[in-house]
Amino acid sequence: MNAPLPYDPNRLAHCAGEIIVCTRELAARGWTPATSSNFSTRIDEHHVAITVSGRDKGRLTEADIMVVDLEGQPVATTARSSAETLLHTQLYKRDPGIGCVLHTHSQNQTVASRLYAGNGHLHLEGYELLKAFPGTHTHETELDIPVLPNSQDMHTLAAQVDALLDKGPLWGYLIDGHGLYAWGRDVAEARRHLEAFDFLLSCELELRKLR
Amino acid sequence: MNAPLPYDPNRLAHCAGEIIVCTRELAARGWTPATSSNFSTRIDEHHVAITVSGRDKGRLTEADIMVVDLEGQPVATTARSSAETLLHTQLYKRDPGIGCVLHTHSQNQTVASRLYAGNGHLHLEGYELLKAFPGTHTHETELDIPVLPNSQDMHTLAAQVDALLDKGPLWGYLIDGHGLYAWGRDVAEARRHLEAFDFLLSCELELRKLR
Amino acid sequence: MNAPLPYDPNRLAHCAGEIIVCTRELAARGWTPATSSNFSTRIDEHHVAITVSGRDKGRLTEADIMVVDLEGQPVATTARSSAETLLHTQLYKRDPGIGCVLHTHSQNQTVASRLYAGNGHLHLEGYELLKAFPGTHTHETELDIPVLPNSQDMHTLAAQVDALLDKGPLWGYLIDGHGLYAWGRDVAEARRHLEAFDFLLSCELELRKLR
Amino acid sequence: MNAPLPYDPNRLAHCAGEIIVCTRELAARGWTPATSSNFSTRIDEHHVAITVSGRDKGRLTEADIMVVDLEGQPVATTARSSAETLLHTQLYKRDPGIGCVLHTHSQNQTVASRLYAGNGHLHLEGYELLKAFPGTHTHETELDIPVLPNSQDMHTLAAQVDALLDKGPLWGYLIDGHGLYAWGRDVAEARRHLEAFDFLLSCELELRKLR
Repeated sequence: MNAPLPYDPNRLAHCAGEIIVCTRELAARGWTPATSSNFSTRIDEHHVAITVSGRDKGRLTEADIMVVDLEGQPVATTARSSAETLLHTQLYKRDPGIGCVLHTHSQNQTVASRLYAGNGHLHLEGYELLKAFPGTHTHETELDIPVLPNSQDMHTLAAQVDALLDKGPLWGYLIDGHGLYAWGRDVAEARRHLEAFDFLLSCELELRKLR
Repeated sequence: MNAPLPYDPNRLAHCAGEIIVCTRELAARGWTPATSSNFSTRIDEHHVAITVSGRDKGRLTEADIMVVDLEGQPVATTARSSAETLLHTQLYKRDPGIGCVLHTHSQNQTVASRLYAGNGHLHLEGYELLKAFPGTHTHETELDIPVLPNSQDMHTLAAQVDALLDKGPLWGYLIDGHGLYAWGRDVAEARRHLEAFDFLLSCELELRKLR
Repeated sequence: MNAPLPYDPNRLAHCAGEIIVCTRELAARGWTPATSSNFSTRIDEHHVAITVSGRDKGRLTEADIMVVDLEGQPVATTARSSAETLLHTQLYKRDPGIGCVLHTHSQNQTVASRLYAGNGHLHLEGYELLKAFPGTHTHETELDIPVLPNSQDMHTLAAQVDALLDKGPLWGYLIDGHGLYAWGRDVAEARRHLEAFDFLLSCELELRKLR
Repeated sequence: MNAPLPYDPNRLAHCAGEIIVCTRELAARGWTPATSSNFSTRIDEHHVAITVSGRDKGRLTEADIMVVDLEGQPVATTARSSAETLLHTQLYKRDPGIGCVLHTHSQNQTVASRLYAGNGHLHLEGYELLKAFPGTHTHETELDIPVLPNSQDMHTLAAQVDALLDKGPLWGYLIDGHGLYAWGRDVAEARRHLEAFDFLLSCELELRKLR
């Protein structure tokens, strides 16, 4: 007889369903090229549902979603999640209000990260869509998206993210040559932040070509 | 027993269906990023069907459409429409021939609005597609799309739009860093105007890169 | 009792079906903005099936297809086709081997037509895809796409097209600020030519930005 | 009575199914304009399933897939494959670990091939997505995509590819004005390489416009 699962399997099924729908839609836009990108939602205080490493994000099924604890260790599974799992779990661990983390590799995100890596951030202002972020009620807002140097050492990256979070509210960051992390209290909010970031990056890149 | 509704619920159902189909198609093109944009059609002389604020425009159902009067006040509902409702209702109030108002945030619209805000307008000429606007029978036409400064004060914006309408026929305008408003006598005409504006903006931006 | 139709209604139904499938696919790519563009196929020696003017090309049904004779006059219908019908029928009349004419307004077509109108043509060479045109067996081919000045006088345009056809084989031309005409012996060939032209135009525009 | 087939027809049906799904998805992205491009998978030690020449890649069915031997000769069919079949079979013949070869003509591939043909290669570094290629565990990797001069003589092209393969591991190459070849041990891996190449080319082209 199997040991009982340390999480509610019905809650996992719900989380997996939400990840699958969201991920397929983002894959259809070309934001997850070559099996890249990873997606997670919170199951409960101690567990997170996350995509299994290396799967085609346009064809996800329940078998492509696994459970990790807040240290990023697999729970009741032999599947393996991405090395970047730590960048997801650090957020869930730090802020109980975070319910979803989305990491994608769109062309806009990758190109913007390369162009603004030297600055360490990309500055946004004058856009109505800045109101997509909580606590922003006007377009007369400024927002800096941090751009971190890429690294294969997740502890190095996680420490830099922690330092950014210490400074104040944050809804996402870029990694140079890599992609974007965005999050929110649930899938809908994380998705709204992700879409707003990508749209604003695309506008900045177009304006840079046109000015 | 509930008071009878001050509008015909069958007419509302028809209007809601038209908004849902049109909005989902525009969302699929990426013109409504991060739950932005809002859409309305006229129910009758005194009422307008409009999208509820903050909903994902790619997943609209009848529950995401509400009724407002021509002052923009909710009718027989506790739902809340966008602060920009006033920019819809000012058009219905002013011109009984207007049956549909579409407001979107495509990348072309946002980028063009930023580039031409200083001019106050974007000048179009030499395009066959200018014939998409009523009363235009040749490409040898000139059309200026006004670009208004963005504001969170809808009365300020509405007053500027009224001043523009006083000058002559108008089928749409841009707001800086924000997006496009377009309208017509019904959904089909408003959609034709919206598509024509977006296409012509995209051509102008490409030509600016190429010349 | 109605007079018998001067064409085979089964053949019309077949032609209409082919136009509908092809047009919806091209509309989905954004090549028919704001109800623009028109499409036709040959029914027989004297009749052509063509789209009714002003219809949304993403939603065509059989009711949106009508019959004209080779002078462009409506046959057994009160529907009205585009003023540009003459640019279709001149091709069917001149060459019994032509079975399909496709006219679209993609962004690439419109922008390229504006940029190269001064030259009167756009020169293509060095592309493998030039082999999409009949009689071309190598990429070491040169092809000039003519760019005609736009006009609302179809007889003027038709006379210019006739002069081009007198010079040698031709599979398409651009009209300034307007769009592309492409044709072939059947829908499949006309579509192949249309796609090849649009792809090659898009490459030329990108290379012009990048060089 | 027919001679028995020299390959397993069930294995062919499986291979054809994989090619059809993959090809339709790539066609939907516009990577196979004007019936261009060709796709193959290995059936067994001596046979390859490959697309029939000239078919619309968005509408493939089993009738559009044929069998060739490792010299590129048709097996038990009167269908004809592309002249480029030799560029597929040379890979299957040389390396028994190769199970799938994908050849596409996206705009990025064609434009990049024209821009970098003079160099003979396009250099990539600093991208996380370089990890999509086997044996790459870090973004601190450099990869050169070879760009071969186009030719209608497949033996000339094949000899150049052989010379490249002699130098070390390779997962794809560009042909000038033409497109990309990518391969892998199965359809999933070849597709991952193809998507990674196209994405990285698109980023390089965008960065060249923006820097």
